[in-house]
Amino acid sequence: MSAAPDATPVYSYLGPVGTFTWEALRQVPEAEGAAWRGVSNVGEALDDVMSGRSVAAMIAIENSVEGGVSATQDALATIPGLRIIGEYLVPVSFVLVGRPGTALADVRVIAAHPVAYAQCRRFLESQLPTHGHVPAASNVAAATSLLSSELAEAAIAPPGITDHHPLQLLAENIGDNPNAVTRFVLVSRTLGLPERTGADKTSIIVELPDDAPGRLLEMLEQFATRGVNMSLLESRPIGDALGRYRFVIDLDGHVHDERVADALLGLKRFSPAVMFLGSYPRADRQQIEVVSQYGDDVFTDARDWLRGILSGEPEA
Amino acid sequence: MSAAPDATPVYSYLGPVGTFTWEALRQVPEAEGAAWRGVSNVGEALDDVMSGRSVAAMIAIENSVEGGVSATQDALATIPGLRIIGEYLVPVSFVLVGRPGTALADVRVIAAHPVAYAQCRRFLESQLPTHGHVPAASNVAAATSLLSSELAEAAIAPPGITDHHPLQLLAENIGDNPNAVTRFVLVSRTLGLPERTGADKTSIIVELPDDAPGRLLEMLEQFATRGVNMSLLESRPIGDALGRYRFVIDLDGHVHDERVADALLGLKRFSPAVMFLGSYPRADRQQIEVVSQYGDDVFTDARDWLRGILSGEPEA
Amino acid sequence: MSAAPDATPVYSYLGPVGTFTWEALRQVPEAEGAAWRGVSNVGEALDDVMSGRSVAAMIAIENSVEGGVSATQDALATIPGLRIIGEYLVPVSFVLVGRPGTALADVRVIAAHPVAYAQCRRFLESQLPTHGHVPAASNVAAATSLLSSELAEAAIAPPGITDHHPLQLLAENIGDNPNAVTRFVLVSRTLGLPERTGADKTSIIVELPDDAPGRLLEMLEQFATRGVNMSLLESRPIGDALGRYRFVIDLDGHVHDERVADALLGLKRFSPAVMFLGSYPRADRQQIEVVSQYGDDVFTDARDWLRGILSGEPEA
Amino acid sequence: MSAAPDATPVYSYLGPVGTFTWEALRQVPEAEGAAWRGVSNVGEALDDVMSGRSVAAMIAIENSVEGGVSATQDALATIPGLRIIGEYLVPVSFVLVGRPGTALADVRVIAAHPVAYAQCRRFLESQLPTHGHVPAASNVAAATSLLSSELAEAAIAPPGITDHHPLQLLAENIGDNPNAVTRFVLVSRTLGLPERTGADKTSIIVELPDDAPGRLLEMLEQFATRGVNMSLLESRPIGDALGRYRFVIDLDGHVHDERVADALLGLKRFSPAVMFLGSYPRADRQQIEVVSQYGDDVFTDARDWLRGILSGEPEA
Repeated sequence: MSAAPDATPVYSYLGPVGTFTWEALRQVPEAEGAAWRGVSNVGEALDDVMSGRSVAAMIAIENSVEGGVSATQDALATIPGLRIIGEYLVPVSFVLVGRPGTALADVRVIAAHPVAYAQCRRFLESQLPTHGHVPAASNVAAATSLLSSELAEAAIAPPGITDHHPLQLLAENIGDNPNAVTRFVLVSRTLGLPERTGADKTSIIVELPDDAPGRLLEMLEQFATRGVNMSLLESRPIGDALGRYRFVIDLDGHVHDERVADALLGLKRFSPAVMFLGSYPRADRQQIEVVSQYGDDVFTDARDWLRGILSGEPEA
Repeated sequence: MSAAPDATPVYSYLGPVGTFTWEALRQVPEAEGAAWRGVSNVGEALDDVMSGRSVAAMIAIENSVEGGVSATQDALATIPGLRIIGEYLVPVSFVLVGRPGTALADVRVIAAHPVAYAQCRRFLESQLPTHGHVPAASNVAAATSLLSSELAEAAIAPPGITDHHPLQLLAENIGDNPNAVTRFVLVSRTLGLPERTGADKTSIIVELPDDAPGRLLEMLEQFATRGVNMSLLESRPIGDALGRYRFVIDLDGHVHDERVADALLGLKRFSPAVMFLGSYPRADRQQIEVVSQYGDDVFTDARDWLRGILSGEPEA
Repeated sequence: MSAAPDATPVYSYLGPVGTFTWEALRQVPEAEGAAWRGVSNVGEALDDVMSGRSVAAMIAIENSVEGGVSATQDALATIPGLRIIGEYLVPVSFVLVGRPGTALADVRVIAAHPVAYAQCRRFLESQLPTHGHVPAASNVAAATSLLSSELAEAAIAPPGITDHHPLQLLAENIGDNPNAVTRFVLVSRTLGLPERTGADKTSIIVELPDDAPGRLLEMLEQFATRGVNMSLLESRPIGDALGRYRFVIDLDGHVHDERVADALLGLKRFSPAVMFLGSYPRADRQQIEVVSQYGDDVFTDARDWLRGILSGEPEA
Repeated sequence: MSAAPDATPVYSYLGPVGTFTWEALRQVPEAEGAAWRGVSNVGEALDDVMSGRSVAAMIAIENSVEGGVSATQDALATIPGLRIIGEYLVPVSFVLVGRPGTALADVRVIAAHPVAYAQCRRFLESQLPTHGHVPAASNVAAATSLLSSELAEAAIAPPGITDHHPLQLLAENIGDNPNAVTRFVLVSRTLGLPERTGADKTSIIVELPDDAPGRLLEMLEQFATRGVNMSLLESRPIGDALGRYRFVIDLDGHVHDERVADALLGLKRFSPAVMFLGSYPRADRQQIEVVSQYGDDVFTDARDWLRGILSGEPEA
C-alpha cells in the first residue's frame, strides 16, 4: 500500500486497514512508525519477505474455530529460509454493517468472506433465515463492496470497520463462538533467534521417514522422552499422493532449552525432513513449567558425566 | 433438485450436475435409478440425511492437495447418528472454459471456486499472469455464471462441464498436480454395518481425555499394541479454546476384525468421547495385510485361554 | 517326615522344623492340624504336590537381599499345572549358636548355608576375621551338624533354633541387613481361584516371541496401557542358549480385575508362552489403588458400547 | 597363590588351577607370563583389584543355565571404580572322577559344588539314583577333596581335572545341557577404554528413579529410540526393601558409538544412579549390525544442523 523510503522498514499484512491481521500487526512495537504494506493473500505476504521488500509479514496461522490455516502452513512448509519471530492473538468477533439508512429488516443478500460467514451461521439462521450470500475476498472487502456495488445490502465485518468507512452498524457480536480467537505469527528471514524468555514456543514441520506403522508414535516419543510438550500437532498432506502427510508442530520451550534442543536432535535423526521455523515468545506470556527431571542442569550434568567416561577421568 | 415419489430413495450431493461430488455418486450402484438431490453445501446434505429426506449423502472428506475438508470433519464430529457406508475416489482435474467464441487471449477475469483456483495457480501465473479472480460457490457455478453474467470471460470447471452446458474449452489439465484426487464418503443413518471384505476402513473421531503431556502417544499406543495401522490422522479444533483438539482417524480394517474391535475397546476406555463413524470397503479395494500375530484366531485363542483360567478348567 | 492318615491333608516345606520356610507355613491357618512334611529342596516339595502326596507346598520365591530364588522360579516355569494360592513374608534374622559351653572366642570354623553365610559377612569380618566356613544344606542342618560332628564350633541359624535343639546362643541379629525379609508362596494344583480381596497379586511367567529389539518394551506396554503395575520383574535364562530369557512377573491385582484380565489377553496374544501361576491375596494385605480410568466399570462400559455397534443398536 | 616380583603384573581368578575361571584366564593374551593369583571367591578377586594387588581379575558373570551370577553383579554394583575390559566364554561340561581304582558302581556319595551338582541332575538320577551329596566350595575343590578325605567316592569336576590331579575318569559329558556356557569378564581399575572394534558390548547398572508405574518402560525407551539393542537385562534387589531393584544391562555397541553415547546421556538424565562398567570387545567377535538410521554420521549430521540453528547460520 505505502511506498517506503529507503530507511523505513516495511511490514506486510493481509489488508486493507481494519482486518484482524492489521489488528495483530498493531501489537508489534517495532512496527510502530514503520511502513505497512497491505497485501491480498499469504503468498504475497511471504513473497515480500523472501524478496526483501518487507522485513517481516504478519500471517494468520490458526483459528480456534476453523483450525489451522492451510495456506499458511503449506507456505511455511515449502518456502525455505523463513523464520517465525513472534506470536500474537486477536479475538475474533463480527458485526453486521450496511449502507447508512439500512435497517436489519431490509437485508436480503449478505457479502461475507466464507470463513466469517461460516462463523456467524447461528445468528444468520435465526435473524435472517432467508438471506442470500455473496462471497468476498476479505472481511474488509466485504464491507467496502457495499460502497461500490448494490449486490448486497449488508456485510459481515470486523468490529472497528465503522472507524474507517462510512457504514452503519446493524448488529454486534454476531459470531457463534464468543471466545473465538485467531493466532498470528510474524515471519521474517532473520536467522538470529529471539531471546529465551521462559515463555517460549518452538515451531517445526516434520515429515515421517516412511509409511511403516508406528512411525508417528516413534516421532512423538522423541518429545515424550525429553519431557517436551506439544501445543499444536496438525497433519497436512504433502500433496503428492493420498495418505502422505507432514506434521506442523508447536513445542513448549525455546531451542536454547536443553530438552528442546535434544528433542530436535532426535527428530532430525529420525526424519529425513525437519524444518525449524523458529523459537519465539508465546503470545500469552505463560511461563513453561519444566519438570526438574528435564531441567537444563540435568542435561549438562549428564554431558559432564559422559565426557569423564570418554576422557578416562575418574567419576566425581 | 428432483422431488422423489414415495418409493424412490433419494441421494443428496453437492450439486449441480457435473461436480466432482456428482462424479463420486455415479460410482454408487445403488444410486442408479434413484432420485439425486443436488444441494449447496455439506450441512445441507447432512440435514437431508438426518431429517430422512435422503437415504444417504455423498460428501467430500479429504483432498490429496488441500487436506481434510474441515466442514465435513466438523459436521461428522458434531452430528450424532451418522454412519459412513462407502468410500469413493475421484481424480481432480480442471479445465478452463469460456463462452463460445472466446479465445484464451481474451481472458481478463476468471470465475472460480477458491479451492479450485488455488490448485491451478501455476497454469494461471504462466498463461494469464495479469488476470483477476471472481470467487464462485462451486466449480459448476463458476462455469454457469459465464452464461448469466459478463463479470468474467472464463471459468475453472470440472472436465465434463461441456457435456452439460454450452461452453467452449480453452485449456485442459490446468491443475498444478496431475495426481490430485478427492476422497468422498457416502453417509447415511443406517446402523447396520457393511459386510467385512478384507479391504475395509474404520473411521472414528476421538477426543483426548485431558491436556496432560503424552496423551496423544497414549492414544496411538492403543492402535500400535494391536497392530492396527492408521491411514488418516487429522487434528481439528474442538472450537471452545485454542489448543483443544479432536482427532479424525481412519484405521485399516473392519470393526468385525478382532484387532480393530479390541483397539476400539481400548480407545473407548481411554477417551471420554469416541465416535464410531463406520466400517466400510476401501475405495481402492486393497486387501489389508495383517501380521499373523494380530489375526482373529490369536484373539479368540487368547480369550479361550483366559476363559479356562477364570472357570478353573485345566489348560489344554 | 510324618505319615498322614487318609483324612489328614499334608503340607510340604523345606525342613526341618525351625527353618524360615517352617515359619512361613505357620502363618497358614489351614495348615494347622494338618500333617507337615519336611523335605530337602524345592524340587522335592513340588514333586509332592504334583504326585498328590501333599495338598500344597511352601517354597521361598524371593529374598530382599539375595533376589529371586532361581530354583523356585525355574521349577514354576517348567512344571505345568502348579498354582500359587497364597503369599507369606518372614523376616530374616540370624543367630550364631554353638555347643553348650562354647564361647565366641573359641570359634574357628563356622557351619552355615551359603546364603545365610553371605548375609552375615559384616558381623563375621569384624568379630571373627580369621574363621573358616563349612557349607551346610540348610540353616537348621548347619546348627544340628554341631551335635553330630566337631568340624565346626559354631553355626549360623534362625532365631528359634534353641527352642528345638540343645544349643547355646553366641550372638543375635548378626545379619548385615536388619530389614531382610523372605517372600514365600504356597503352591498347589487347585485350579479354583482364591477370592478377589482388592489386595491381590497375579503371578505369571512369560517368554518373548523372539529376539527382535524392543520386544521387552512391547511386553511391558501390555501392562502400561491398562494401568497394571508390576511389583516384580525377573529375567531367568531359558537355558538353551545365552541371551534367551523368560520373565517372572508379579502384577498388582487379581485376574478377576478387568484390567488384569485384559492385560493377560494382550500378553497371551503377544507371547508364544505365558504361564498363569495364580491370583492370590498379598501378604501385606495392602489394597491396590486403581486409577478410575482403569476401573472395572470402564471396561464393561466399553464392551457395552462396542456390543451396541456390532449389533446395530443406536448408541445410548 | 604366587608371589609376584615387582615388575610382573598379577591376575586374580577363582582358583585353583583347572577351574572354568582358570580356563577363561587362559584366553587372555596379556596374562601369559604374568603371575596368576588363585582366590576363593569373587569378593576376594575384586579386593585384589581395588587394593592394587592385581592388575585385573577374571570373574564369572552369567551362566547360560543358571543365569546371572548374583555375587558378581552385586559386587560390581556396589564397588565403585571397577571397569570391565574384556569378555570370555567357556563351554561348561562336567566329568565324574574318582580315586584310582574306583568304578562307577562303587559310588555312594558325590562331592560337588552346588551349581555343578544342579547341572548334572539328569545323569545322576539315571545312573546313580540313590547317591548322596556333599557340597564343595568349587569344582576343583570337590575333586581334590577325594584325595584328602574318604567322605565321598566321586566328584563332579571340569574336564581337564585329570591333567592336574591323580584321579580317574568315571564318566564324561555328564551335564544336562550340552550347550551350557559360562560368560566371564576381566575386571580392572583402568579408566582408559578398550578400542572400538565394531563388535563391542557396553555394560551398565541402573536404578529406577522411583516406584512410579511405567518407569522401567521409560528406561527401555532410552535404548529403543536410539536403536540400541540389549543383550542382557537382569533385575537385582537393591537390598534395602522388597520390590526395590537395580538393573544389570549389556548393550550392543561401544560408548564411542554415537547411539550408545546418546543412550547413556538419556539414561543418566533419567536415573539418579547409573554406573558405567565399561565398553569392551564381545567374546564372540560378532559385528553389531546398526540400522543406517542410527549410524554415527546421522548423529553428527543432526548436531551440525542444530549448531547451524543456534549460531544463526543459514541451513546448508
